[in-house]
Amino acid sequence: MKDFKYYAPTEVAFGRDSEERIGELALKYGAHKVLVHYGGSSAVRSGLIDKVYGQLQKAGLAYVSLGGVVPNPRVSKVREGIELCRREGVDFILAVGGGSVIDSAKAISVGVPYDGDVWDFYTRKAYASVCLPLATVLTIPAAGSEMSDGSVITNEDGNLKKDYCTDIFRCKFAVMNPERTFTLPPFQTACGVVDMMMHTMERYFSHDDDMVLTDAVAESILRTVMDCAFKVLRDPQDYVARAQLMWAGSIAHNDLTGCGTTGDWGTHMIEHELSGMFDVAHGAGLAAVWGSWARNVYMLLPSRFARFAVNVMGVTNDFTSVEKTALAGIEAAERFFHAIGMPVSIPELIGRPATEEEILKMADTCTGGDSHSVGVFKPLWSADIAAIYRAANG
Amino acid sequence: MKDFKYYAPTEVAFGRDSEERIGELALKYGAHKVLVHYGGSSAVRSGLIDKVYGQLQKAGLAYVSLGGVVPNPRVSKVREGIELCRREGVDFILAVGGGSVIDSAKAISVGVPYDGDVWDFYTRKAYASVCLPLATVLTIPAAGSEMSDGSVITNEDGNLKKDYCTDIFRCKFAVMNPERTFTLPPFQTACGVVDMMMHTMERYFSHDDDMVLTDAVAESILRTVMDCAFKVLRDPQDYVARAQLMWAGSIAHNDLTGCGTTGDWGTHMIEHELSGMFDVAHGAGLAAVWGSWARNVYMLLPSRFARFAVNVMGVTNDFTSVEKTALAGIEAAERFFHAIGMPVSIPELIGRPATEEEILKMADTCTGGDSHSVGVFKPLWSADIAAIYRAANG
Repeated sequence: MKDFKYYAPTEVAFGRDSEERIGELALKYGAHKVLVHYGGSSAVRSGLIDKVYGQLQKAGLAYVSLGGVVPNPRVSKVREGIELCRREGVDFILAVGGGSVIDSAKAISVGVPYDGDVWDFYTRKAYASVCLPLATVLTIPAAGSEMSDGSVITNEDGNLKKDYCTDIFRCKFAVMNPERTFTLPPFQTACGVVDMMMHTMERYFSHDDDMVLTDAVAESILRTVMDCAFKVLRDPQDYVARAQLMWAGSIAHNDLTGCGTTGDWGTHMIEHELSGMFDVAHGAGLAAVWGSWARNVYMLLPSRFARFAVNVMGVTNDFTSVEKTALAGIEAAERFFHAIGMPVSIPELIGRPATEEEILKMADTCTGGDSHSVGVFKPLWSADIAAIYRAANG
Repeated sequence: MKDFKYYAPTEVAFGRDSEERIGELALKYGAHKVLVHYGGSSAVRSGLIDKVYGQLQKAGLAYVSLGGVVPNPRVSKVREGIELCRREGVDFILAVGGGSVIDSAKAISVGVPYDGDVWDFYTRKAYASVCLPLATVLTIPAAGSEMSDGSVITNEDGNLKKDYCTDIFRCKFAVMNPERTFTLPPFQTACGVVDMMMHTMERYFSHDDDMVLTDAVAESILRTVMDCAFKVLRDPQDYVARAQLMWAGSIAHNDLTGCGTTGDWGTHMIEHELSGMFDVAHGAGLAAVWGSWARNVYMLLPSRFARFAVNVMGVTNDFTSVEKTALAGIEAAERFFHAIGMPVSIPELIGRPATEEEILKMADTCTGGDSHSVGVFKPLWSADIAAIYRAANG
């Protein structure tokens, strides 16, 4: 097991009445003038944005707003937010939405006090030491950005999707009302399920296989998420199941599932190229390539995949062959993805196979022209990644 | 399920090399002059206190020290610490030890800036809004105080053991090196195991029985702790098992196991009277009365105890009788306590039965002369609590 750091300082207000606390929490964490940052029209239509404004008014807080954040949030919108915050003297950002909105807010938060261009953080040209405080009213359980240290932004100039991680822009608070997720369409719900599963699985598939407490917690999260996925797809207003998913999304990505293990993150990197090139939903992209990644790497520690097969997927252990058990688990995961309407191949994801040219380009970008490998469980180079895309292409 | 708040801001540095970060972390969290607060001579003998001094010196930090904290930490020592901090201009407290030392440090932290007597906080005569920042170098996995909002102090004047909970004195950071727990004697190790189990179980036995994610996490912690208890009692230097226990102690009591449930805390209150009167080890006291508590209350929701029996204790479910399964689980828990050397009755705890007079006095103190009930799963009044002590007396 690895030495580890665990740091998840976000104050979570969870439940039906949590939205009543928005103003009080913003005051507690030092807000005077708030940027209300959000995505599409659903947050407006549902009345949530008005509720947020009302909460801020009641607390005597000034605010401006900036909507229009899209999935795979764009650096152009981030730059617009930075300008707005500077012009308006904003000192607190409230992200109302899901991972894309929070990631965009995080980028704005480090961009405002920085002299250069915010993209510098995402290309490791600069490291932030200060930022505006930020918080979230979460509406989509998936990305876990509400408790994570990460932000992923897409630069339209070159279809680059890059991440930046720092403790300083972790959310001060996160308001989570599971009722807000009742109206999530089935596809988006399923994408969220895959995303939170993958945040757990990227940390679970590790050569550090002796941190049994972390493993047990991870397996609990995965089993609960899979069970509740079916429940909310059958009944979108199942509050209890929606609540499990919402909380699972947070603890899957607040590092609890990585205590003592080494995260891999290969599947995420492989998917980032897909959504950078084809602008697909992140969760769907992960589902489309995970099985191909797993079959490429499992032989380095088949016992780990066998444990996943039995403890998470409910596969009957084949005591004569750890490899067979491992493979049965990968197949079961793909069956689960299919059962909740997710793709398990690139054609299912984008409607056609990727061309060989596209595959080579994505594989090359993913490793920076083989200047670095991707993943830890098995370090992958361009050729490995191209092989994974090809396996997912059939 | 209940709406909930989750707030666990403590930065954890976990592992063999974590102690190298003490100075850096103290600086990061604003220390200039540190009170090094500790317990008995073992922290000195082991070289840990010298290592802490070295770390502080290397970081250019001044310090004073105050040892001698005892189990069931005394308010007199707290008052001594408060005086020392004021006299020396201390602005940061570093608790080196287990729960007693951390609880004492928390009391000092709120006492220093307070005009009145620190005991006021524990009797609800005052509520703290400021405190000195504090942190810990943990050596005993048990109380979970390193990530909790609670402090329990004993007032020698009347053998009163009282708790005070507030977010403001949560530790800024916690350094946890499992190697420091290698030398814990078997009895103290087992007491810690019971304590962390009870922190989980007090939250698990709840009428809010639909927060399945929290339940699954709690069950994972309990199963892991029980397994690792046997491992470390067999081999005290089993690093991996010691590490699971150390991390389990923290997440059992940082509220993760209470998300969406209503904690009971009846067993803790019943035990506090025992250790107030007989100065016994907290974990041993909990083990001595838990079974009697459980048999007194389980019929209010036998399915909950049956779930515990099967999912935690590995009892074979009796599908014809949820009550029989529930009772089998309580018995299995007592068997486990015995197997790790813990008492399951008052005579086993203090060497003789409690007298009827002692029982009535403890029951009366516990409820403030029946001015309030204790516990939530089944609210208990003096007569109930006396019955539980009597059941544990046989």
